[in-house]
Amino acid sequence: MTKPDPTIYPGTVAQLRIALAQVNSTVGDLDGNADQVVAWTRRAADAGAHLVAFPEMALTGYPVEDLALRTSFVEASRRALERLARRLAGEGLGDLPVVTGYLDRRTVGRTARAARSGQPAGAPLDGAAWLHGGEVLVRSAKHHLPNYGVFDEYRIFVRGDRLPVVRVHGVDVATVICEDLWQDGGPVSVTHASGAGLLLSINASPYERDKDDVRLDLCAERAREAGCALAYVNMVGGQDELVFDGDSVIVGPDGTPLARAPQFTEHLLVADLTLPAADPSREPGSTPVDALDGTTITIDRHVLSPDPLPAYPALPPAAAEPLDDLAEVYAALVLGTRDYVRKNGFRSVVLGLSGGIDSALVATIATDAIGPENVHAVLLPSRYSSEGSVVDAEELVKRQGINSRIVPIAEMVEAFEKHLDLHGLAEENLQARIRANVWMGLSNEHGHLVLTGGNKSELATGYSTLYGDSAGGFGPIKDVFKLTVWELARWRNAQAGREPALLHRFAQEPIPEAIIEKEPSAELRPGQRDRDSLPEYAELDPVLTDYVEGDMGRDALVAAGHDPALVERVIRLVDIAEYKRRQYPPGPKITPKNFGRDRRLPITNGWRER
Amino acid sequence: MTKPDPTIYPGTVAQLRIALAQVNSTVGDLDGNADQVVAWTRRAADAGAHLVAFPEMALTGYPVEDLALRTSFVEASRRALERLARRLAGEGLGDLPVVTGYLDRRTVGRTARAARSGQPAGAPLDGAAWLHGGEVLVRSAKHHLPNYGVFDEYRIFVRGDRLPVVRVHGVDVATVICEDLWQDGGPVSVTHASGAGLLLSINASPYERDKDDVRLDLCAERAREAGCALAYVNMVGGQDELVFDGDSVIVGPDGTPLARAPQFTEHLLVADLTLPAADPSREPGSTPVDALDGTTITIDRHVLSPDPLPAYPALPPAAAEPLDDLAEVYAALVLGTRDYVRKNGFRSVVLGLSGGIDSALVATIATDAIGPENVHAVLLPSRYSSEGSVVDAEELVKRQGINSRIVPIAEMVEAFEKHLDLHGLAEENLQARIRANVWMGLSNEHGHLVLTGGNKSELATGYSTLYGDSAGGFGPIKDVFKLTVWELARWRNAQAGREPALLHRFAQEPIPEAIIEKEPSAELRPGQRDRDSLPEYAELDPVLTDYVEGDMGRDALVAAGHDPALVERVIRLVDIAEYKRRQYPPGPKITPKNFGRDRRLPITNGWRER
Repeated sequence: MTKPDPTIYPGTVAQLRIALAQVNSTVGDLDGNADQVVAWTRRAADAGAHLVAFPEMALTGYPVEDLALRTSFVEASRRALERLARRLAGEGLGDLPVVTGYLDRRTVGRTARAARSGQPAGAPLDGAAWLHGGEVLVRSAKHHLPNYGVFDEYRIFVRGDRLPVVRVHGVDVATVICEDLWQDGGPVSVTHASGAGLLLSINASPYERDKDDVRLDLCAERAREAGCALAYVNMVGGQDELVFDGDSVIVGPDGTPLARAPQFTEHLLVADLTLPAADPSREPGSTPVDALDGTTITIDRHVLSPDPLPAYPALPPAAAEPLDDLAEVYAALVLGTRDYVRKNGFRSVVLGLSGGIDSALVATIATDAIGPENVHAVLLPSRYSSEGSVVDAEELVKRQGINSRIVPIAEMVEAFEKHLDLHGLAEENLQARIRANVWMGLSNEHGHLVLTGGNKSELATGYSTLYGDSAGGFGPIKDVFKLTVWELARWRNAQAGREPALLHRFAQEPIPEAIIEKEPSAELRPGQRDRDSLPEYAELDPVLTDYVEGDMGRDALVAAGHDPALVERVIRLVDIAEYKRRQYPPGPKITPKNFGRDRRLPITNGWRER
Repeated sequence: MTKPDPTIYPGTVAQLRIALAQVNSTVGDLDGNADQVVAWTRRAADAGAHLVAFPEMALTGYPVEDLALRTSFVEASRRALERLARRLAGEGLGDLPVVTGYLDRRTVGRTARAARSGQPAGAPLDGAAWLHGGEVLVRSAKHHLPNYGVFDEYRIFVRGDRLPVVRVHGVDVATVICEDLWQDGGPVSVTHASGAGLLLSINASPYERDKDDVRLDLCAERAREAGCALAYVNMVGGQDELVFDGDSVIVGPDGTPLARAPQFTEHLLVADLTLPAADPSREPGSTPVDALDGTTITIDRHVLSPDPLPAYPALPPAAAEPLDDLAEVYAALVLGTRDYVRKNGFRSVVLGLSGGIDSALVATIATDAIGPENVHAVLLPSRYSSEGSVVDAEELVKRQGINSRIVPIAEMVEAFEKHLDLHGLAEENLQARIRANVWMGLSNEHGHLVLTGGNKSELATGYSTLYGDSAGGFGPIKDVFKLTVWELARWRNAQAGREPALLHRFAQEPIPEAIIEKEPSAELRPGQRDRDSLPEYAELDPVLTDYVEGDMGRDALVAAGHDPALVERVIRLVDIAEYKRRQYPPGPKITPKNFGRDRRLPITNGWRER
């Protein structure tokens, strides 16, 4: 960014110290999340910030899913917001403007048939509020609602139609929410029309591999489109199946990165910006503007402090270095696992340790996430387990300092076989299910969360037993293809002896080399090898990536250069696996549809229906 | 309906014999569904119909869910539609206009960012087509996309914006799709503007208890609004978690019912209607009209046969009697179970038979659905099972003529206990999981589908074991509260000796009275009774209904007259159960989100990616 020089253009520029609070909210925990907003606002005030911004839905956590449809929860969020504004003022923080995400609702009336007519019950809003002087100064809500991939927002939100523009120390600051940045038309185009000097975007944008560059490029493009600097604050932390990576960023009006927060950790990004001063002739009030997407958005202008501050010395810019690819993936797995355990009220985990690479990597991730003293491994050798498997698993236990016990399953298998005459796959599955019974028993008895070890290559091709190795609460590597499992194991071993941020300090390599090098096997029958049932992983994984993640059909896969026979085989494996998964959906679902699924009941972490 | 008298108003009225083909489609089975359209079109032709209509998505099955996002499947549906048109003509049925639902896509180009910008990939459409003379005469698509309850259509469809009005024997017939009828504005209001003489609505509307009257009232209201008669054809059959109940209906312009098809069975409803003749001055062509919902809909006028037929003797109207409440619920459970088994490629089921009411009712439903010779019961007594349980279960086996075996689990439990020191709930769960291992083993060995016995009261309150009694492919009574389980058992027993439609003929009561009368118990510890853990079902079920199905909060429940202490207790039970379900989501889900869930891969029933 080329900084305007205030000595040359007096009155046309203004300085502003902005703080982006990249925090880790918990869905449902209104009190805990509000405490967090107060604590980080205090840090921002201590840093001399003139404005502090929190992520999308920071007050409620994200994603709230169908909890947005529970009226009492929406009301609790609205009350929590007002209480937060009063509390900030009560604690001497009322002069610092705070922007935060929360759950609101549209307050206009609705017809009796509204719940059917495409509008979610109660008309919930993915809201943003400016808090100042003990009050809620202005409210707005997300305009563009994403409804693809992991998002189902048409189901639970109605769209907002306002763009707040608030003058802070002579700078007009406009606020938008997450998806509003990703789509053409709407709030960003209105921002340009508003003449704002800074566009503030609050987000809960989940981590995807290789997404960070896309996001930075988008910020740059939208800054140029809005004609002003752009500050992007993102949530951090794991929530259910998602991991938010933080990586908050500020870019100039030409798209140049000015400041960047670290990934996968809570952080306050403080930056001094020199921005165009607001045109004083623009008075407070509301103006409807064509949003160029078929809708009208109303600009809500407010003035908190009309005049630019006297010039002051700016802080040096802070720019965290992004992690490299494997470090980033590994950090996401550790943070996702840690927060899944913690936010679900657990302190410890139990997992089956087979001596293979998958359970070895899961144990290592668990140790990094919650410490070796909280990890309980159970070795479950059968008549088909190789001796090496037990030895290798015990070596891992020793290197990582985790808890372990051995529970041989031969007698349990025999007790079943006495009454049942099972063969082939039925017999293999029985062993896997007996193992699951053991770790579920230990989980029920001792309160550990069960971690499962399946990787994405196995799960996608159905090389897994229902209610067996797939049984458990969280699968740290469920979205990691097998080739990446090996890469991550080697990457993690290479960190031993160093002091990597966010990870446990191992003196020696946490994963024995023998585990990384052995041929993959489920060890459920004599001499079994993965490659008896699956293509070699080096061939399988690239096709899986395009078929499962890219949703490419047969012709597209062949056109992309994959071997036609291999494509046929992989499609067949994946489709049969998916067919079987549909035959045995996970536990009886009851209506409403999302009960036990997307429907999130209020007990989750903090807020209770009472 | 007051019929206009053609002898008094010559040329102002026209007769039309319409056939509504209430068929049972299978998702993904394009060839099988097309065969069905041809077969039922022939029946309509044989009945002398002038127009035959099939349900929404009759060609692809409904709901296709994320399979709509697979380009190759959308293309396969489009090709199947054109092939169907040619085949109908080739088989001598080209002169009979056929209206059918299918999957289409918007054919205008889209931008690179379309997949993010709220438009599903490939812009799929929930289409309707008129087939005539070997060709696709006109295509339209659903305008109002439902996105609540069991529907997620914003996720997979874009909205249609055309209303076809086709002149058949001098009558202008407009076609709309399902939700278009439920919402204000859009196609129905345009129908009025179009001056159509008949509004044809094609549907895939799932059964809900007490929904039929709502639907009939809606048809009457929309007929009056459109100012013309309305023909409503609905799908029938079970598909995954849904059951379509048929119950197709025709009402006059004043809302009077004229004809009605039976529920829960395939049927061709043929009716002679006397309708206003079309204004001949209305020429074929396209006219945009304000749809009164913020959008514009284009009327597409076509003329197949401009002139009314000479007067002919009308058939007497057919009006099936709706079933009473319990008969309707029971029929839905039987049809849902039968089609789940069949459409998932199974012929037989296995289930645990405990001697309690839930598994007894499930066995009876299974016998009604697929015949006693295909039902395999397994009795799994433990050290805590009462003698009466085994005796009662054996009596049921005898009365129903189903297959059975006894597998005592004591030795299996002991084999686990030798290595694990489990107490309380952990010990109870172990027994339930061992039972699941047995029936899953039998399922894997013999290819039976596992049916689970949990009822909605148990599942909602978490009175159930993960990977234990809840393990299985389909839970016939998962959406039935306990009080209704008893009512259904008594209702079913009362049918014994009769010859009820759609049900198995039992000479004596299929469920022993002792099973209905005994006190509910899980029999997992000495003297255990449900009421030690749960409120009495007579108290529990009404609160559950309002909390789980009505999504009412605490205050609303108390305001509705429920005892406050009971409300607290039930909320606590349900929320903790739901919390635990979230801690242990069903099997590791991998991205994309819907993999193993809503994402439906093509192998399902017929169509293959190849």
